[in-house]
Amino acid sequence: MNIKQYIASIPGFPKEGIIFRDVTPILKNPDCMKYVTEKLSAFAKEVKADLIIAPEARGFFFGIPVALECHVGFAPVRKPGKLPRKTMSQTYQLEYGVDELQMHIDAIQEGMRVVIIDDLLATGGTVEAMIKMVEFKQAIVAGIGFVIELDDLKGKEKFKDIPVLSLTHFEGE
Amino acid sequence: MNIKQYIASIPGFPKEGIIFRDVTPILKNPDCMKYVTEKLSAFAKEVKADLIIAPEARGFFFGIPVALECHVGFAPVRKPGKLPRKTMSQTYQLEYGVDELQMHIDAIQEGMRVVIIDDLLATGGTVEAMIKMVEFKQAIVAGIGFVIELDDLKGKEKFKDIPVLSLTHFEGE
Repeated sequence: MNIKQYIASIPGFPKEGIIFRDVTPILKNPDCMKYVTEKLSAFAKEVKADLIIAPEARGFFFGIPVALECHVGFAPVRKPGKLPRKTMSQTYQLEYGVDELQMHIDAIQEGMRVVIIDDLLATGGTVEAMIKMVEFKQAIVAGIGFVIELDDLKGKEKFKDIPVLSLTHFEGE
Repeated sequence: MNIKQYIASIPGFPKEGIIFRDVTPILKNPDCMKYVTEKLSAFAKEVKADLIIAPEARGFFFGIPVALECHVGFAPVRKPGKLPRKTMSQTYQLEYGVDELQMHIDAIQEGMRVVIIDDLLATGGTVEAMIKMVEFKQAIVAGIGFVIELDDLKGKEKFKDIPVLSLTHFEGE
């Protein structure tokens, strides 16, 4: 299946100079959604995931069904103030300024094999923050799966020693 | 399965006087997640859903796997500024002030049977806003499914003529 036909490209969103890659047409098409879930799940099984984590909100679209398909737990990664119990936090660099991600402190157990799922790999800053939280808990990032990778931003260079799967790629388009 | 044991209750979150019902332990347990997905999917099939919609971000936890299980499309309902293409909007009343939800204008087709999924029914304000968007597109709200219903807030009275399924209930606890 050519999933690129289910990704809408919107120039100038959220700001001038950016082409936003919109995955909502994938969600709208159950065959494409099933295909994406199966591909990411096969990868997560191959690297022996026993926990899936994904950042709000678009990461949930793919992380949740992968966890169900692999029959392992899922833990959400959220913006500050959203999770009600005791959390750990990690800041990360944006183009201008910093942002922060949180997880429940008990979401990850020592030694777990964690797979990170997200819709899109750009510069890799949010993934880097998630890796730090997994490692803080002395667990292992077993793999990272994306629907889309923006090749020219070279985000993958930030995590060279971890298996990465991207289902489709864009470069300078 | 008694899913109540997978719901954490946090008094005083996000503010004094509220008991927050946290579904993250459901996500952590694949058997419970599978059970919840199957129950909500059986309901969505029974009311002949051909589209699932759910609001960010916790609604995605359950709406996405229900859409996959029913093999129908999913459309996200988001806070303003998140969806990149042409949207429709609906405001709704909060305790103090108003908030707003958006959907892509092409997410719903006329005559579709739409099932709304969310983690929790409280006063029903967000669901009411979603119903208005479905009806604006001349589609039908075929059913509404929740993991949790807070009975004493009587949210269900807001949509009397629509089939509602809540998998578990809390009242003055």
